[in-house]
Amino acid sequence: MSGVPWDDRGLLLGDGLFETLLAERGRLVNLPAHLARMMAGCETLGLPPPDPERARSLCLAALEEAGLAGERAAVRLTLTAGSGGRGLDRPPVLQPRLRATAATSPEPVGPVHLRLAKVRRNEGSPASRLKTLSYLDNVLARRQAAPDEALMLDNAGNLACAGVANLFWVAGGRLFTPALDCGVLPGTVRAGILAWAGGEGPGAAEVCMGPEALGQADGVFLTNSLIGVRPVASLDGRPLSRSPLTERVEQVVRALNRSW
Amino acid sequence: MSGVPWDDRGLLLGDGLFETLLAERGRLVNLPAHLARMMAGCETLGLPPPDPERARSLCLAALEEAGLAGERAAVRLTLTAGSGGRGLDRPPVLQPRLRATAATSPEPVGPVHLRLAKVRRNEGSPASRLKTLSYLDNVLARRQAAPDEALMLDNAGNLACAGVANLFWVAGGRLFTPALDCGVLPGTVRAGILAWAGGEGPGAAEVCMGPEALGQADGVFLTNSLIGVRPVASLDGRPLSRSPLTERVEQVVRALNRSW
Repeated sequence: MSGVPWDDRGLLLGDGLFETLLAERGRLVNLPAHLARMMAGCETLGLPPPDPERARSLCLAALEEAGLAGERAAVRLTLTAGSGGRGLDRPPVLQPRLRATAATSPEPVGPVHLRLAKVRRNEGSPASRLKTLSYLDNVLARRQAAPDEALMLDNAGNLACAGVANLFWVAGGRLFTPALDCGVLPGTVRAGILAWAGGEGPGAAEVCMGPEALGQADGVFLTNSLIGVRPVASLDGRPLSRSPLTERVEQVVRALNRSW
Repeated sequence: MSGVPWDDRGLLLGDGLFETLLAERGRLVNLPAHLARMMAGCETLGLPPPDPERARSLCLAALEEAGLAGERAAVRLTLTAGSGGRGLDRPPVLQPRLRATAATSPEPVGPVHLRLAKVRRNEGSPASRLKTLSYLDNVLARRQAAPDEALMLDNAGNLACAGVANLFWVAGGRLFTPALDCGVLPGTVRAGILAWAGGEGPGAAEVCMGPEALGQADGVFLTNSLIGVRPVASLDGRPLSRSPLTERVEQVVRALNRSW
């Protein structure tokens, strides 16, 4: 695999985007949603969007190269702003770099434990609602929480997300998840759950609330493309309630994953 | 120049640090302060620190390679966390990559104009007090403010910094600058000015204040390693006062640069 030159803006400044998606036996699950999010991110950052067909081909080729076309795998698609510019400023014409890699992604087993991280999400930056190459805050949050998963708040003290997943909780028979305004990535599985819950499901609300909401909830779970739905067993060592609704959402997401 | 592999964590996640320093005819200005800041950043991020002698050699070699050993130049020293790990999590043993590059750095001319950026500094992350490879927020702030320089606030609405510089203002004959708590990089020139102002100088305070402080100030200026001290002429098109103290600080920093 050829490398990236040292003057690439993705490397020097975290100027770029990525997507992580699930591949099941060579099928790229919900690829259109991932590409749509990357396109929207390009619009926000002012980057030329990648060609969707090329992105798809690169993802499939990465699976083949890694010998994972028949397995459950994680595909990462990385887009850098390319080389050039002076200091922070971009060059007049951008030539982005696009690359896909694949790795095995075993199905996660059992519930996850959360620990409140000190590092906050930056709700005051559009980058907090994108999957950018400037992902160090989440790396640090995961380090602070290890071996548990990190629970991240925004600077106002509102619930935002986990280190690598969106956050949901159950209260009064409905689903709740932090609003995007709290520095939250609009996850593809999150979107699927919200659409289901608002239709035939139990109803859902995107809210700004502090971490005490989790202690009072009937159930808490995380979502992302690779783990699907994963129940949360504890926060800072204190057990959290389990709701049967979590299992129902898990089944819904499994069905969505097959249809996407 | 050989490249960086696509699995480098600096590229994939912005997991790393950099320094930008001034070189005057082959002399690396205030190199010990820059290396000390990078070492402190490594401590905060949990990265193995680079060998200072190797860092120095790389910087000097970069100047030679670029044919800039006799000129005014900018040297960028980049440290990535190296390859590996799974998702956001680092591998058990890190093998950081260290690289220096050099470019011409013409002396800036005239005052700068500031424009308030919407993108905020993330005061809730230790990364906001480090020069990390996750620098996208500042890239976006500069884009929002272009062709002016960006003025950045933290999420609480306090003054933080410019897109690529620290911020100072003059009021009542004293100097003021945003406190590090407001998501501020501890600049090397900023430190030199604070030390001078607190000793033989006019006194200085690190404060948390909103942008209205600049309109009321007797003078406003920016500082960084490459520009030294640069007066600010306007904010969002409204002229700002000029203070003779700005010129005095400019002379002090020129003298410091010769001694460092």
